[in-house]
Amino acid sequence: MLIKAEFEQRLSELRKRMLSEDRQALLVFSLDNLRYLTNYSGEAAYGIVTLEKVFLITDYRFMEQAKEECFDCHLKCRDRDQQSLGQAIRQVLDAQGITRLLFEAAHINTQVWAGIVQELNGIIYTASAGLAEDLRKTKDEWEIAQIRKAAAIADQALQDSLPLIKPGISERAFALELEYRMQQLGSEGLSFPSIVGFGPRSALPHCIPSSRALAEGNLIVIDFGAVINGYRSDMTRSFVAGKANAQQRNIFDTVQRAQQAALDSLHAGQIATAVSAAASNVLQASEFASHTSTGLGHGVGIQLHEQPFISPVCHDTLQTNYVITIEPGIYIPGYGGVRIEDDVVVLADGYSFISHAPKLFELEI
Amino acid sequence: MLIKAEFEQRLSELRKRMLSEDRQALLVFSLDNLRYLTNYSGEAAYGIVTLEKVFLITDYRFMEQAKEECFDCHLKCRDRDQQSLGQAIRQVLDAQGITRLLFEAAHINTQVWAGIVQELNGIIYTASAGLAEDLRKTKDEWEIAQIRKAAAIADQALQDSLPLIKPGISERAFALELEYRMQQLGSEGLSFPSIVGFGPRSALPHCIPSSRALAEGNLIVIDFGAVINGYRSDMTRSFVAGKANAQQRNIFDTVQRAQQAALDSLHAGQIATAVSAAASNVLQASEFASHTSTGLGHGVGIQLHEQPFISPVCHDTLQTNYVITIEPGIYIPGYGGVRIEDDVVVLADGYSFISHAPKLFELEI
Repeated sequence: MLIKAEFEQRLSELRKRMLSEDRQALLVFSLDNLRYLTNYSGEAAYGIVTLEKVFLITDYRFMEQAKEECFDCHLKCRDRDQQSLGQAIRQVLDAQGITRLLFEAAHINTQVWAGIVQELNGIIYTASAGLAEDLRKTKDEWEIAQIRKAAAIADQALQDSLPLIKPGISERAFALELEYRMQQLGSEGLSFPSIVGFGPRSALPHCIPSSRALAEGNLIVIDFGAVINGYRSDMTRSFVAGKANAQQRNIFDTVQRAQQAALDSLHAGQIATAVSAAASNVLQASEFASHTSTGLGHGVGIQLHEQPFISPVCHDTLQTNYVITIEPGIYIPGYGGVRIEDDVVVLADGYSFISHAPKLFELEI
Repeated sequence: MLIKAEFEQRLSELRKRMLSEDRQALLVFSLDNLRYLTNYSGEAAYGIVTLEKVFLITDYRFMEQAKEECFDCHLKCRDRDQQSLGQAIRQVLDAQGITRLLFEAAHINTQVWAGIVQELNGIIYTASAGLAEDLRKTKDEWEIAQIRKAAAIADQALQDSLPLIKPGISERAFALELEYRMQQLGSEGLSFPSIVGFGPRSALPHCIPSSRALAEGNLIVIDFGAVINGYRSDMTRSFVAGKANAQQRNIFDTVQRAQQAALDSLHAGQIATAVSAAASNVLQASEFASHTSTGLGHGVGIQLHEQPFISPVCHDTLQTNYVITIEPGIYIPGYGGVRIEDDVVVLADGYSFISHAPKLFELEI
């Protein structure tokens, strides 16, 4: 169970960073960050984290939910017809004696922000460079447990759905059956709209499921995930409908070797670019060098794509309990593609798999 | 089928408004507005509508989709490692001789906008007050046809799912079955996460389906919708599991009379506040006056909630071919609630129903 101590730990880390930037409060505009810092999972809410307290401003529609969910928050119910958001924020700032402020610039639109700024006379405010996002990279035990539960549901739903892979089924019909099973198994909606591509469409990295029907010998890419307590999983498996030909087998083996090379390079202290290079070296040495993608993976948690990003341009040092995806792929336009993606926890001396579905490749049809 | 003439009509209307504000171009940051103006339904794209041309800036991931979907757009494929978004925008502006610009302030975060502004030296830019949103209020025939298709799927899925309403089924299990059926019938995902509330939970206007099991005599609120070609439907039906008692019948009849009063007041030229008052008068004259909500309805289309809003504070004049919801409700905390919601098209002399599911109330269980 999620406990108060975990939120106190998160807030304590955040406050250290606020202090190091000489600021007394952070305006939280991202609902994902608000959930991380307060446990509130509703909408239409804004947070103010000071060095001593946490305030959450919402309206009558979400007060009951806020009361139920929030850990140690001071709740402010704003009457939107009587008080602007800027006025409500200013009221809290004045009552707490706040004059030096950080705000989440990446999570507020310029129109709403312009309205708030009108109420900030005399207050020093600075755009925050992803303070909460930075904390969220390291998952605590409870968070890892949620992602593991989501991934276990995805594993099971895939196993239950694979018998439906028969010539004639459409990408869309298969996606729907897979999604239905995940939710029957307890997933809160979908981690993201599933990607299902058959034949040449498996070469589209973001293939939206269509009415395309499966034919024997088609390559198949399935990329999907479940959600538990707001935490997401993200996994891709690739198959061939029936027996693989030599080319398909070669593509699959190359992608699998690239993924293993990246996994073998993982440990706390490793640089993201080095993990990316480990996979890239395998792909670039293969005959498919011109058909690969640049991004190798990303953090996953409350958001599907969060920090750190595993790519040739991201120089983050991976730490213990980062949860990331490793997802190399080969995409040959007009022919087909293969991607293999797993979620893993970074450990001091290696990694631990979160996703466990077997990598079968050839499916009996 | 969607035809080029419809997009030309939309762009022509938009350009009239740009001219009336003495601006040569609009920066489009809302993906919904971009879809409305270009037919592009992907992500990670930005539009520039000038008085003569339309430019769409995206990257390699979405170029194929943009080529397939866009009507008469000049596509710019940006290498995100080489060129900032601001630089890409500036390049188009300079090539087109644009010096006076509108931008969609409500659809760009302050961090990204600050980056763009760095590249706008010498350009006059003004926040746009919802130009495209204003156009989107009036639906053309193709748009109305899509919402009708989505609503027909929702009608059918509800009819197919009602036999599952038996004591013991959970809110979540029913919601999943309903959603599965809508998608089997062709809905592109969900219009929004379904609201299903049983018993006292039917009094929560935004009830997230839970493990609560249905019991005989419970009030039931079901609020859901389908999506076709990006256009959404939105309908609520309320039931009682078995025979209604006098109080439940009274609540249901009151809500139904309130909805009918609002519908009877509808015609092009009517003010939104008058429609709101028509329903409110019925509710306020009833014994449930203290258990109603303030908003009566909203526009529906590419977004679930779009302009115009039907409420005591929205003074929009309704026009022919606005598509709106009319959804009065009574919510008694701890007891239960009833909401009835339909989508209608505003006509010169009245309205036309888009949703058609019967308003049964008592369900055999």
